Amino acid sequence: MTSKAAVSKKVVIFGNGKFAELVGYLVQQDSEYEVVAFTVDRPFIDSDRLLDVPVIAFDEVTDHFPPESYQMLVALGYLQVNGLRERKYTEAKELGYQFISYVSSRASTWPNVHIGENCIIFEQAVLQPFSSLGDNVIVRSSAHVSHHVRVANHAFISAGVTIGGGTTISEFSFVGLNATVRDNITIGPKCFVAAGAAVIADTEDDGLYIGVPAKRHPKPASTMDL
Amino acid sequence: MTSKAAVSKKVVIFGNGKFAELVGYLVQQDSEYEVVAFTVDRPFIDSDRLLDVPVIAFDEVTDHFPPESYQMLVALGYLQVNGLRERKYTEAKELGYQFISYVSSRASTWPNVHIGENCIIFEQAVLQPFSSLGDNVIVRSSAHVSHHVRVANHAFISAGVTIGGGTTISEFSFVGLNATVRDNITIGPKCFVAAGAAVIADTEDDGLYIGVPAKRHPKPASTMDL
Amino acid sequence: MTSKAAVSKKVVIFGNGKFAELVGYLVQQDSEYEVVAFTVDRPFIDSDRLLDVPVIAFDEVTDHFPPESYQMLVALGYLQVNGLRERKYTEAKELGYQFISYVSSRASTWPNVHIGENCIIFEQAVLQPFSSLGDNVIVRSSAHVSHHVRVANHAFISAGVTIGGGTTISEFSFVGLNATVRDNITIGPKCFVAAGAAVIADTEDDGLYIGVPAKRHPKPASTMDL
Repeated sequence: MTSKAAVSKKVVIFGNGKFAELVGYLVQQDSEYEVVAFTVDRPFIDSDRLLDVPVIAFDEVTDHFPPESYQMLVALGYLQVNGLRERKYTEAKELGYQFISYVSSRASTWPNVHIGENCIIFEQAVLQPFSSLGDNVIVRSSAHVSHHVRVANHAFISAGVTIGGGTTISEFSFVGLNATVRDNITIGPKCFVAAGAAVIADTEDDGLYIGVPAKRHPKPASTMDL
Repeated sequence: MTSKAAVSKKVVIFGNGKFAELVGYLVQQDSEYEVVAFTVDRPFIDSDRLLDVPVIAFDEVTDHFPPESYQMLVALGYLQVNGLRERKYTEAKELGYQFISYVSSRASTWPNVHIGENCIIFEQAVLQPFSSLGDNVIVRSSAHVSHHVRVANHAFISAGVTIGGGTTISEFSFVGLNATVRDNITIGPKCFVAAGAAVIADTEDDGLYIGVPAKRHPKPASTMDL
Repeated sequence: MTSKAAVSKKVVIFGNGKFAELVGYLVQQDSEYEVVAFTVDRPFIDSDRLLDVPVIAFDEVTDHFPPESYQMLVALGYLQVNGLRERKYTEAKELGYQFISYVSSRASTWPNVHIGENCIIFEQAVLQPFSSLGDNVIVRSSAHVSHHVRVANHAFISAGVTIGGGTTISEFSFVGLNATVRDNITIGPKCFVAAGAAVIADTEDDGLYIGVPAKRHPKPASTMDL
């Protein structure tokens, strides 16, 4: 255990796109963790280096960076309404990895805020007292998660979003850039709230919501070409 | 006077709902003040403790926490277009209480910003130089009060709001979550700007404004079921 | 050179309106620079003092504050879709002035962010890693410039704006209060995005965009009465 604790500050990041590059840079600049490698599924490797560390295929990650000695951070965005990030998180978990969460030193949190594993919280994000985040949640820069808000597993809160007090964001839901979600409502599972939308009532599952105030679009969120 | 100054760091908070709980927690965590009790009108007491301090009826608050030795902070939200908060603030003032203002250590202010009494300014709120707030004003997290803005008594600026330079927000007005108010305009008294709305021209008194750009709704703000 | 370096912390600000007053105050309060004067074109002088320093005519600025010994900061807003600020910046450059950039100590930047000359970055603005700003760019308070965003010369990003990752804001464009610009798109040159608008696709040059989602207005941006 001592040995494990000693090495567990070394992290492998899942992803090699611009979002993973961003997260890798921030973890390097602004955390206690050392990024030792990026990993992705073999067909997606287009360069063997990123941010001066190796990019290796996920099917051999345990050979080079075994879960006994390294932690993981899955830094994928909202592709497939967060489904891709959930799958890779689950696959890495099944391999035995533990996960870090990265909370920017410039985010605002309080002692009673709960943050799960494999969460990524960016600069100037606000997590108010009595809020909680599940696992595998992303809160982008300058987003506001108000008091008594609950964000469930695998959700993605985009930059500039404002979520009012007491609201629930259910699993897999995506809230787009600078969108607004009123206080004391529930965003159902797997919803997609479009950029700039203002949701002022509970939403149905798998719904795509657009406009101010937001209305449900006939297309289900899960059919979106993301 | 010495004695009064010595005890005046002890504060009673008016309110026992989620908003008061939030404010109480923040004052405990992030100010020089000690929260000694919550107080509300007797019919609204549903528990005799909140955040580990007593909740007492307002009709006996002066017995336990006299205004000579304790200050007050009325932590009510925007109910009745801020009318409830104004009434309780006035009642407490008539009992002889002085009021603190809570300004989060994570808000951004400058020496020439004026902040009245019984104001509550949350994390990441920005009060730019040459702005001023009257008394009993609330500015929620991540709201932006630009340069040369004047916010009058009893107004409520919600989370994520952006107010452009030189604008006036008149008494009792409410600006909803992530709404936008253009520069150099006047929001009249007792207006209600809906979540996500963008107001780009002066508004009429008691007006309800919705949409981008915002239009006046036929219903007066004062009839809203808040 | 030593002598020049020694005096180059003294700055003349071009402008004498409320925006220049704001910038002057912030530079005084929150930078290593000393504001020694304001300068504007002679017909616009309405007072010979501002913030306790002289206001002098631009046609005599080199007599009193020669470019060998003083730097310049052009603190004009978005008049004429940023055209006025560009012209005065160019005129000052032709006189031989070097320019400072003011980056608020309360803005969030990272080592790999590029910021050009004569830029002004306000409180709580976020410039994410891998973003870059050209010259003569203004980023107002609480605006979010996401990762891999490029903001070209002479652009103006208003307070509360959210710009998604990988997007390009072209020269002279103006993005209004609390507007949203989606990730991975291009705002063409000299565009005007209205307050609260949400732009979710590439825009045409000189276009005026309004609403959520934003649509092009028939009027060109350059005809706006700003």
